[in-house]
Amino acid sequence: MKLYQSNASPNSRRIRVYLAEKGISMPIVPVDLGAREQFSDAYAAINPRRVVPTLVLDDGSAIGEVPVIIRYLEDIHPAPPLLGSTPKKRAEIAMWERRVEQEGFASVMEAVRNAAPRLANRAIAGPYDYAQIPDLVERSKQRLLNFYADTDARLADVPFVAGDEFSIADITAIVTVDFATKAAGLAIPDKHTALKRWYESVSARASMAA
Amino acid sequence: MKLYQSNASPNSRRIRVYLAEKGISMPIVPVDLGAREQFSDAYAAINPRRVVPTLVLDDGSAIGEVPVIIRYLEDIHPAPPLLGSTPKKRAEIAMWERRVEQEGFASVMEAVRNAAPRLANRAIAGPYDYAQIPDLVERSKQRLLNFYADTDARLADVPFVAGDEFSIADITAIVTVDFATKAAGLAIPDKHTALKRWYESVSARASMAA
Repeated sequence: MKLYQSNASPNSRRIRVYLAEKGISMPIVPVDLGAREQFSDAYAAINPRRVVPTLVLDDGSAIGEVPVIIRYLEDIHPAPPLLGSTPKKRAEIAMWERRVEQEGFASVMEAVRNAAPRLANRAIAGPYDYAQIPDLVERSKQRLLNFYADTDARLADVPFVAGDEFSIADITAIVTVDFATKAAGLAIPDKHTALKRWYESVSARASMAA
Repeated sequence: MKLYQSNASPNSRRIRVYLAEKGISMPIVPVDLGAREQFSDAYAAINPRRVVPTLVLDDGSAIGEVPVIIRYLEDIHPAPPLLGSTPKKRAEIAMWERRVEQEGFASVMEAVRNAAPRLANRAIAGPYDYAQIPDLVERSKQRLLNFYADTDARLADVPFVAGDEFSIADITAIVTVDFATKAAGLAIPDKHTALKRWYESVSARASMAA
């Protein structure tokens, strides 16, 4: 098993932090996005969407899509559980992780991809070129601010994004905040005290350096 | 356990078809989207995103997000398997289902929500109003056409979207095609013979009337 990934990719970081939390190590194959290596025939053969990361199994099967890679790794390495250990807990964690991804992570990605000059015609990751739509940038930033407000309200009631336990939902949320801060200039507003407290606490975990 | 859903909602149909395939029945609670019932306090209490469907368990816990609801139902009703029965098969099916959702289903939803006069300021489902962005409509339609082309190429090689077996990926794909045809006037182009053959065959399953 080996992981194709890029240190510059927030989606790859989601996997790296998960691996660090679980104590799983595996060979890493760097994919140089700056050199457009994801568009090579070799990479397209393992990921037709031309995105990182991809997990390649020992039989050559390729697994793409971050939550799917993580679910597979959790299936074969169940302890310690980061995706829940009963059907109900698994559902609650997956639901919150997906909300973070759709409202937070996807909003930052959309804001960045529709604005960065180096991504002209690359507004959506994948095999096809799509022109940037400037009107999307402000809307996406507003979506991220709404995500911050909603998550702050939730974290005033529960210690972690999915409830009582640290989970994959927190990993996606930390990667979202760091990506928003660095790539879109949108750090957590000071008024969101519960979200900031959660961020300081969760960011201190050793895995977050991954 | 009961399902809050709307017959007008393609996301709800994904669950209805799954339930029909599995032979699971449960009480259905209709949510009247036309009357904006999803914005009622009662519904917001079970789904803070104000979207359908939501599965409410006997202890009152609410599970939202279509793939999460389906994964929960599959956990408690494993036979017949529609999400795979080994870690690797589960990963392959989840990967393909997610690609269909992101490239196909989400594209149609975006095209419709940014165009329909009744959805002015409702370009994104959820608790917040967002103005429509007309430039998104054509881009989303192009994304759907690219999804059709990619899926046609895949179905020239394998009988079902995720490979050898009928799965949840086929359900999401059928709901996408029917929604695109009805709501965006984008039926499968005649040139995509493998995709059309798959569509005719899978659409004939009794579950698809759900």
